[in-house]
Amino acid sequence: MVTKIKLADIPTTAPKGWDEDDTEKKTKKLVKELGDLQQLLHAEAKHSVLVVLQGMDGSGKDGAVHKVFDACRITGLTLTAFKKPTEEEFAHDFLWRVHKAAPEKGMIAIFNRSHYEDILIQRVHGWIDEKRVEQRMNAINAFEELLAFDNNTHIFKFYLHISKDEQEKQLLERMAEPDKHWKHNPGDWKEREHWDKYMQCYEDAINKSSIPWHICPVDDRWYRDYFIAKTLVDGLSKVPMVMPPLET
Amino acid sequence: MVTKIKLADIPTTAPKGWDEDDTEKKTKKLVKELGDLQQLLHAEAKHSVLVVLQGMDGSGKDGAVHKVFDACRITGLTLTAFKKPTEEEFAHDFLWRVHKAAPEKGMIAIFNRSHYEDILIQRVHGWIDEKRVEQRMNAINAFEELLAFDNNTHIFKFYLHISKDEQEKQLLERMAEPDKHWKHNPGDWKEREHWDKYMQCYEDAINKSSIPWHICPVDDRWYRDYFIAKTLVDGLSKVPMVMPPLET
Repeated sequence: MVTKIKLADIPTTAPKGWDEDDTEKKTKKLVKELGDLQQLLHAEAKHSVLVVLQGMDGSGKDGAVHKVFDACRITGLTLTAFKKPTEEEFAHDFLWRVHKAAPEKGMIAIFNRSHYEDILIQRVHGWIDEKRVEQRMNAINAFEELLAFDNNTHIFKFYLHISKDEQEKQLLERMAEPDKHWKHNPGDWKEREHWDKYMQCYEDAINKSSIPWHICPVDDRWYRDYFIAKTLVDGLSKVPMVMPPLET
Repeated sequence: MVTKIKLADIPTTAPKGWDEDDTEKKTKKLVKELGDLQQLLHAEAKHSVLVVLQGMDGSGKDGAVHKVFDACRITGLTLTAFKKPTEEEFAHDFLWRVHKAAPEKGMIAIFNRSHYEDILIQRVHGWIDEKRVEQRMNAINAFEELLAFDNNTHIFKFYLHISKDEQEKQLLERMAEPDKHWKHNPGDWKEREHWDKYMQCYEDAINKSSIPWHICPVDDRWYRDYFIAKTLVDGLSKVPMVMPPLET
């Protein structure tokens, strides 16, 4: 029996006793290692990687991308930010646009938001009923399993766990700092009113996923980067990959 | 309990007593009705239709497309012929290229061959093991259900049921008639050697599909066209569609 995750019981800050400078040194090393692993992945082209970043507004999804993948080559990366569906996307099932963005062998695909939005924002606002939520959850599990068994896709899903107070700080910063104004969206404050419902829906999605999630504390941004880089490096180090020999 | 289909027990010819001229008149009417239903589907843009045509070489998939959809407008149709995967397609899971071709609301998508090839030709030749066949069958069922529940896709799958003798006749014709030479492929004769294995694999796929198949006798081509048109018109007539009123 798998233990259910309770988000309220999981800290949003770095573990006690962790030092920022020390951790940043470790992160730097991990980021470089991830770059090396990506090169191997790309050269061998037998496996693929999907990194899903989900979290409330202000949880630092963009920042995580910049920091963690800094040593990766863009030729081996694709980054897809899933926003409000276009008219064409909306005229298809919810996984249609997601499947198109799935990584080919040798590539790392990063999803900034993902197919999970379709059982988060849509559920929070009651745009879909509970039966549809259940059907979509089953479809998500089947989809992720398909990528895993049929395309050697290693899937890393991160829930960027932010506290409600830290979110407020982040959203206020966007309004206060001119070079963050472009990130400010008045709608974020409205979504914030549904905080508890979002937490419930996240918890439910996480607990019903067949491929497990990593709950990443993000109130300390330096720990966020360490956590994601460490998880990816540990995971990818276990994948048996070799540099292909010269073809003669 | 669903009765399992046994292909060997199902005739490949028109039912006894059916007259060719008579049937062709009926087909003509049905083809026109299908054109009308397509206009309604397209105008309303709330439902979508997927028509899957599977069958051995020479079973008349192309011919069926020409005849049955003759009165449909090409603006509301997409036709995808799934051939040997390209390098890019092959670097993804088997459903990646298929999902891209799924119909948007208001459209009819016709698949000439389909995702089923990935558990047919690949299984017959032992390119994938039985575990993978099972995983893919589950993925196919989940995929088709996704289209159905999340995009109102009405799925019609036809197995074009041809006898081994009729196939030989068809393949020989392609060699004898200059305007059919382009259809001749020496590989077809090789695949024919695996006839029994193909029949087993088709039977298994049909019996394990959660969305049922229509077994269409094709030795009499005039009956094939009638059968497909009749199935589509009967099925689509049951879909509650209305012409949208003028927006004011």
